Amino acid sequence: MTDPTQATTLLVSCPDQRGIVAALAQVLYGHGANILDSDQHTDATAGVFFQRIRFECSDLRTDRSSLENAISEVAARMGMSWKLCEEGIPKRVALFVSRTDHCLFDLLLRHRSGELRCEIPLILSNHPDLEPVANQFGIPFHVVPITAENKASQEQQELVLLQEQRVDLVVLARYMQILTGDFIARYPNAIINIHHSFLPAFSGGRPYHQASKRGVKLIGATAHYATQDLDEGPIIDQDVIRTSHRDSVADLTRKGRDVERSVLSRAVRWHLEDRILVYANKTVVFA
Amino acid sequence: MTDPTQATTLLVSCPDQRGIVAALAQVLYGHGANILDSDQHTDATAGVFFQRIRFECSDLRTDRSSLENAISEVAARMGMSWKLCEEGIPKRVALFVSRTDHCLFDLLLRHRSGELRCEIPLILSNHPDLEPVANQFGIPFHVVPITAENKASQEQQELVLLQEQRVDLVVLARYMQILTGDFIARYPNAIINIHHSFLPAFSGGRPYHQASKRGVKLIGATAHYATQDLDEGPIIDQDVIRTSHRDSVADLTRKGRDVERSVLSRAVRWHLEDRILVYANKTVVFA
Amino acid sequence: MTDPTQATTLLVSCPDQRGIVAALAQVLYGHGANILDSDQHTDATAGVFFQRIRFECSDLRTDRSSLENAISEVAARMGMSWKLCEEGIPKRVALFVSRTDHCLFDLLLRHRSGELRCEIPLILSNHPDLEPVANQFGIPFHVVPITAENKASQEQQELVLLQEQRVDLVVLARYMQILTGDFIARYPNAIINIHHSFLPAFSGGRPYHQASKRGVKLIGATAHYATQDLDEGPIIDQDVIRTSHRDSVADLTRKGRDVERSVLSRAVRWHLEDRILVYANKTVVFA
Amino acid sequence: MTDPTQATTLLVSCPDQRGIVAALAQVLYGHGANILDSDQHTDATAGVFFQRIRFECSDLRTDRSSLENAISEVAARMGMSWKLCEEGIPKRVALFVSRTDHCLFDLLLRHRSGELRCEIPLILSNHPDLEPVANQFGIPFHVVPITAENKASQEQQELVLLQEQRVDLVVLARYMQILTGDFIARYPNAIINIHHSFLPAFSGGRPYHQASKRGVKLIGATAHYATQDLDEGPIIDQDVIRTSHRDSVADLTRKGRDVERSVLSRAVRWHLEDRILVYANKTVVFA
Repeated sequence: MTDPTQATTLLVSCPDQRGIVAALAQVLYGHGANILDSDQHTDATAGVFFQRIRFECSDLRTDRSSLENAISEVAARMGMSWKLCEEGIPKRVALFVSRTDHCLFDLLLRHRSGELRCEIPLILSNHPDLEPVANQFGIPFHVVPITAENKASQEQQELVLLQEQRVDLVVLARYMQILTGDFIARYPNAIINIHHSFLPAFSGGRPYHQASKRGVKLIGATAHYATQDLDEGPIIDQDVIRTSHRDSVADLTRKGRDVERSVLSRAVRWHLEDRILVYANKTVVFA
Repeated sequence: MTDPTQATTLLVSCPDQRGIVAALAQVLYGHGANILDSDQHTDATAGVFFQRIRFECSDLRTDRSSLENAISEVAARMGMSWKLCEEGIPKRVALFVSRTDHCLFDLLLRHRSGELRCEIPLILSNHPDLEPVANQFGIPFHVVPITAENKASQEQQELVLLQEQRVDLVVLARYMQILTGDFIARYPNAIINIHHSFLPAFSGGRPYHQASKRGVKLIGATAHYATQDLDEGPIIDQDVIRTSHRDSVADLTRKGRDVERSVLSRAVRWHLEDRILVYANKTVVFA
Repeated sequence: MTDPTQATTLLVSCPDQRGIVAALAQVLYGHGANILDSDQHTDATAGVFFQRIRFECSDLRTDRSSLENAISEVAARMGMSWKLCEEGIPKRVALFVSRTDHCLFDLLLRHRSGELRCEIPLILSNHPDLEPVANQFGIPFHVVPITAENKASQEQQELVLLQEQRVDLVVLARYMQILTGDFIARYPNAIINIHHSFLPAFSGGRPYHQASKRGVKLIGATAHYATQDLDEGPIIDQDVIRTSHRDSVADLTRKGRDVERSVLSRAVRWHLEDRILVYANKTVVFA
Repeated sequence: MTDPTQATTLLVSCPDQRGIVAALAQVLYGHGANILDSDQHTDATAGVFFQRIRFECSDLRTDRSSLENAISEVAARMGMSWKLCEEGIPKRVALFVSRTDHCLFDLLLRHRSGELRCEIPLILSNHPDLEPVANQFGIPFHVVPITAENKASQEQQELVLLQEQRVDLVVLARYMQILTGDFIARYPNAIINIHHSFLPAFSGGRPYHQASKRGVKLIGATAHYATQDLDEGPIIDQDVIRTSHRDSVADLTRKGRDVERSVLSRAVRWHLEDRILVYANKTVVFA
């Protein structure tokens, strides 16, 4: 059931060809939909077309399902992948955390101030530490401890929770566990991770110690969709912050927290506003 | 005469209404034009719709003028302002300078490296100092000295030069003269100026001395279209650079040069690529 | 009473002259103090010298007061203003807020994570709205409603509270009241305010509406010490964030919140770490 | 022979210990030198102390060599590495280029505008393409073609040229040849290279194609001293520029040029102003 006064977003991608824009615009106009925003991109090298159309349906001449049928017809003819997203149906988001609270607080405060259009039915952690934060915001908190031995079965329990809560998006807000391929496969392009990354990039543990040792002048963070290849998924956003020889590891850690939380929350917002299309392990972000 | 293998850009603005996107896409598709890029924006408050459509015409089913007629018809029906810009017909740009060369060099080097799609038939100055730079790049250099007394007549001479050279865009690349309203009226939204700007803003002379005195931590620059109200024209781009108490006036001046030249060249490039629409003394930049 | 294992910071300014660095270094070395950090600046135009020396006293050969006497002697000879700040005695900070919580949360979370070396004995507001936030963090919350009529007497009440709590620094974290000159005079260079600021600068209310109307491409914020001239006090830090025609007033407001909170918390941290010297209505920040 | 009215910079590093600042300040003061700027840093982890002192000698009570002897004595006592740099004796810089001119032009223009305090007695290239640029600026241009076979002998010829011209600093301004270890060993911490680098970093050829393929949202550049380990030398400066899906490889290349040239020229300026100290494969930059 959708509210016709709320906007709808259509995301499409397909092989590049003539007449795509006209065909979709015609369908929407013909049914009485009113286009609010439209953004389009063609990757000429890959020969792929992308479009995001945001429209509202308060004066729809037909009903919803006949509009969807018409889109579906165009899509079939042109080989489109497509998705209709309703602003009236906010996405349901699960936040995964461990012990660090800076990304969690940032997301919860932005949610409360209305910046993030979603519901947050649960926070899940492998540690009990952040339960008081969840309580402050009145969000159910689930502790699912993970060991090398029980990871598979515990993930099953997590997946049950996510299903029960009809979760659309998982945000790894400094969740210090590596998800299995099975888990990730259940939420394709629907798990957002935040990764510290530097110039040059450091893999492995204790990144801010590595950065300090290497004497880098910038530290950064990357938000990306989780894929089987750890930290190699499609990049959604990146940012950096300037550092100097005066920055101790503690200073780098503080600066890292700032850039991590702002990059992560921006990526989450873009996802919630249906601004991201994924292809060829990269993203088109209609920001 | 246009080259059908080069892209064409259509810029439109009109009162917001239904069916605009569909109508234009239909016209283009119907004539066999192939949309390469399309970007659209609605100012909901002002109720104005903007669109930039870049398309190519190599497989046009009809001829050019019938396409233009069709667009014209849609435009009339919907109350559109519109403009067709041909990449095959590079814009002709006059650079106005005084004695400072950093913006001039930046534009000439970017032009030579292919970043700026235009022809530069003349450089005009109220001082002879930069003639050697013009010579280096093989561009005719005109000295038109300006005094309080002769400004009106000298500007007439300048306008003659611009007309002879069929100039489309005037770039004030640190030209230290104030143009008269008459001059500006001849090139509406076709004169780009670069203006130092700060937080807080300083009016009057010697801005970097003022910035130093006030102890600002950022200095900036604004590129805008020249209008009758000096420095109050539609803003195209702005940027800032961080400063500190260690920066002398000389350092501020150096940093100011860097930010001025990068902001100006970006604004010029956007104009040359037909990415800017002006309304209500502000801009939509489809960058 | 000071803890000799904690560092001490000496801030000095004086007319520029020879031998300042040597004289201070000699005094510290002679008493067995160990210099950890030293930063120095000369404003050649104004002829003023500034230095920040951070040192620790665990192996002091004499006692504390003889060290202070020695510094005092040098200071008298050279016409210095000077201040000794003990890390072992954290500053006491009062947060003034109205209804907006983004700066408040940012400061409280950074405080809790150890980024801000201070105590926060009270939060004061002219509205009751943010009391739950204060409760969450276990900080006493005082409501002091202000009207045009009662401002003078209410400020007296505030000053009593500040004195009772031995407050060293007042942070106006989006406190929407203008303090009187009397109040400000009681805390010279010890009241930090955050001010939205733009290129060009807008005075008056509803700045983000003004920014939207003017079509600026950057919005910013300035943290400064409060002085009698509203918003004209010494600037501590500034930053900006990029905007575009796509940003609604709501988007500008969101971006404004982000830049406000990060600039304010940076300014507060620098003050707490005794990194700021004020002169001629501007600051030297040894960041 | 030095000009006493020009400033001198003393750079020192040594094991951290008490009394360093006092000892050096005392020596300078005692000889009548006037400290203009002093900046100091201690790497507490490595236990190393760094200082940069800029002073002028117009009222020196003794002569130059007795000042140097006194510094030398302190240095010996404290185990210091030290260097005295005279502003009156500008460094001599050789620019190495290949075919790309953006970094070359940027350095030459900044040199001409007085931003870079140095002499540029020669430009050296493995290709003849940029000779006209050298001619424009009146700088001798040497072509030294390099093949796999002749690299060792050609480098010998280059070294002869550098010696003849008493070159202090080699700047690799997009010089597309890898220098041998022998060459690099002759100019320790005196060869500055500019390296494209990204988040995550890309090694190997065609970096902008790689960046486009990976869909990064930032591209960057790193200026560093050349060492035997290619691109692993001490980092002097880094910067990034924001990119999006709309950026073609050509756009990335253009943005890359902008960030490369600004990072390189900043690193060169800092070196010329004796602001950089190297240790443990990283830098202290007193900027």
